Amino acid sequence: MSAPDPKALGKRAAAMLAELGAISAESGRLVRLFLTPEHRRAADLVAGWMRAAGLSVSEDALGTVRGRFGASPRRLLIGSHIDTVIDAGQYDGPLGVVAGILAAEHFARAGIELPFGIDVLAFGDEEGSRFPATMTSSSACASVFERDALASTDLDGVTLADALRAYGKNPDDIAMAAYRPEQAAGYVEVHIEQGPVLEAKGEPLGIVTGIVGQSRLRVTVTGQANHAGTVPMGLRHDAFAGAAEMALALETIAREHPEDGMVGTVGHVEVAPGAVNIIPGRVVFTVDLRALTDALRLAAVERFAAETRRIASARGLNAAIETFHDIPSAHCAPALQDALSESVTELGHAPVHLPSGAGHDAQVMARLCPSAMLFVRCRGGISHNPAEFANAADMGVAIAALTRFIERFNRG
Amino acid sequence: MSAPDPKALGKRAAAMLAELGAISAESGRLVRLFLTPEHRRAADLVAGWMRAAGLSVSEDALGTVRGRFGASPRRLLIGSHIDTVIDAGQYDGPLGVVAGILAAEHFARAGIELPFGIDVLAFGDEEGSRFPATMTSSSACASVFERDALASTDLDGVTLADALRAYGKNPDDIAMAAYRPEQAAGYVEVHIEQGPVLEAKGEPLGIVTGIVGQSRLRVTVTGQANHAGTVPMGLRHDAFAGAAEMALALETIAREHPEDGMVGTVGHVEVAPGAVNIIPGRVVFTVDLRALTDALRLAAVERFAAETRRIASARGLNAAIETFHDIPSAHCAPALQDALSESVTELGHAPVHLPSGAGHDAQVMARLCPSAMLFVRCRGGISHNPAEFANAADMGVAIAALTRFIERFNRG
Repeated sequence: MSAPDPKALGKRAAAMLAELGAISAESGRLVRLFLTPEHRRAADLVAGWMRAAGLSVSEDALGTVRGRFGASPRRLLIGSHIDTVIDAGQYDGPLGVVAGILAAEHFARAGIELPFGIDVLAFGDEEGSRFPATMTSSSACASVFERDALASTDLDGVTLADALRAYGKNPDDIAMAAYRPEQAAGYVEVHIEQGPVLEAKGEPLGIVTGIVGQSRLRVTVTGQANHAGTVPMGLRHDAFAGAAEMALALETIAREHPEDGMVGTVGHVEVAPGAVNIIPGRVVFTVDLRALTDALRLAAVERFAAETRRIASARGLNAAIETFHDIPSAHCAPALQDALSESVTELGHAPVHLPSGAGHDAQVMARLCPSAMLFVRCRGGISHNPAEFANAADMGVAIAALTRFIERFNRG
Repeated sequence: MSAPDPKALGKRAAAMLAELGAISAESGRLVRLFLTPEHRRAADLVAGWMRAAGLSVSEDALGTVRGRFGASPRRLLIGSHIDTVIDAGQYDGPLGVVAGILAAEHFARAGIELPFGIDVLAFGDEEGSRFPATMTSSSACASVFERDALASTDLDGVTLADALRAYGKNPDDIAMAAYRPEQAAGYVEVHIEQGPVLEAKGEPLGIVTGIVGQSRLRVTVTGQANHAGTVPMGLRHDAFAGAAEMALALETIAREHPEDGMVGTVGHVEVAPGAVNIIPGRVVFTVDLRALTDALRLAAVERFAAETRRIASARGLNAAIETFHDIPSAHCAPALQDALSESVTELGHAPVHLPSGAGHDAQVMARLCPSAMLFVRCRGGISHNPAEFANAADMGVAIAALTRFIERFNRG
């Protein structure tokens, strides 16, 4: 059969994303949370598309919609998520599900035999917008679901276990959602980049080298609150001046490894007492430090801690550093990266290799099987925002590349 | 007559301050606001002390209690305030009133004739804790009261005019509270330092060279909020990293003129959106910059603005600077400073010359007549706090020095 037309695929994908993007809990903005009526409606829409594409549909114990093609016990898994953040865009998650359906359709409609089957997976919980845990859907598939999460509650005090039951699922069935390693031949996920790198390079597609590891720290700087007029500069213990110096030290450290995707951010800052005319006595700020190489990230955390202690000591401040989050990186399988690269190249584009600075289901699935991600350029690098946008042409090329990847996976 | 004994004066002052400090609107902390029942009780207590000291007592249209000694039309004014901040200490304000009463008593009890009269003034509004305006009491005495303030309201919506009427005063009488310049021979105020300089120098008393001018700015830094993981360091427009650099630039600038009492503070900081994993897109922070020499202060503001523009430009940020407060400095009269210095020296202490970084009624009174301030060491430089403390010995020496100052003023 002829290769699918990227332009037509892009148009279809855009229309499907618009339809899915209209399913929201609120009329003015896109909010679609795990195990809600909106999740049900989105899952039903996706299931209908899967059936129309020639896939057989089932749902697992976490509500993940599975579109199945081919009978082989070895499955190529293609997935992403259909839940959203609060006030979301249409592309983050749904693009990967739609891409999987349209790529699988190419084989299913034509009845092409493959030496493996395809499962298109529409996960219902990646963002963690409703319950504290994130990526519970892919965790169940990868057999790493932590049952403690069942007792966690949403803002209304509903536990995840009760929400699952209300959605018609049985928490006791979660173990059955897991793929056995020998069943899972690989996992691939198409996703908008959520960053500005592809746009800056003028390329539509990126091959993800891995998903960065993350360290999150809370730094509490304690000085001495005092009158802003009466304490000479030399006698101050200004917690904010110290915190400012620490934030710039973090920036300097994080700038040293752009090749490894290292980034450092001070995102949350509280200054107390916070009056115009009082020297800050206490500042609490967060640090988010990411890198692809865990050893580099941990060394950067150590250097930041040492700089922070040095700055605190020089200013007569106390600085306490607490790590409240530490996630190792996940590397994408080199063979799958190569297959994606070749597919992108065949379509006349230069494959850009880049790490993913955001978390994705692929990092969970990498614990089960070789995994890969294909990034699609998005406008201004903006995501988690109604302004999120990927153009139809880029999405079409991505789906065409995914189709070629499947063919390659076939040959491989 | 013999010189007053500092030790005895200090003990009396401490007892009086404790009695006054027990008059509060709340049982657990000291809150004494302008034109409240607590103000009334404090004014009555002070009036009783004045009468016992041999002074004749009156009240002006703003409720300022005046204790009068001597019939001369030329008056030496000695004052401070009896209102407090919320959760105040006992010393800020009342010490100057008590010092004035005990010093005047020395002359009144002994019937010492002076070529001028003494008015001890207990102002009811210096802190501005109830109404937006501050120092309205001394403004009325100095003939610079702004009648717009009468329409301003407290948190309950009560206007200053109505509060005055409820206190038994007539706003139309405010003009009569003003001293004519030829009546006011000078103004002197004893006050706790509210800073750590005297403690650091190991001296009980300081001669105030002037009260610093103040610039207050609001700086709004706008960058681009984005995902903390997906935007490489080189493509960021991080509003907080920019603000941190600006805050450190302010610190560097303010450190250059310690001899002029220059201080710079970033006291209030808001970082938006404020999430751990989002690059800050907007930071609003305040700058409080003070110095004794207005030209130096304004030049520092200009330099800060230039540095801020440079930093913003280098980082692709926008920075808007708004000045919302600009108060010129007030210089203490050199002749009165000399008289205070000699008095302190006679008592065996080294007079420390220092600017006042905080505002005081003396800066208003300086618009009427030659003015001076005597600072008293306070523990840890702490004020506006229940931990505020000045020891009895230091207060006694201050009152003895004030007495000698009056004798000198007599001779001068």
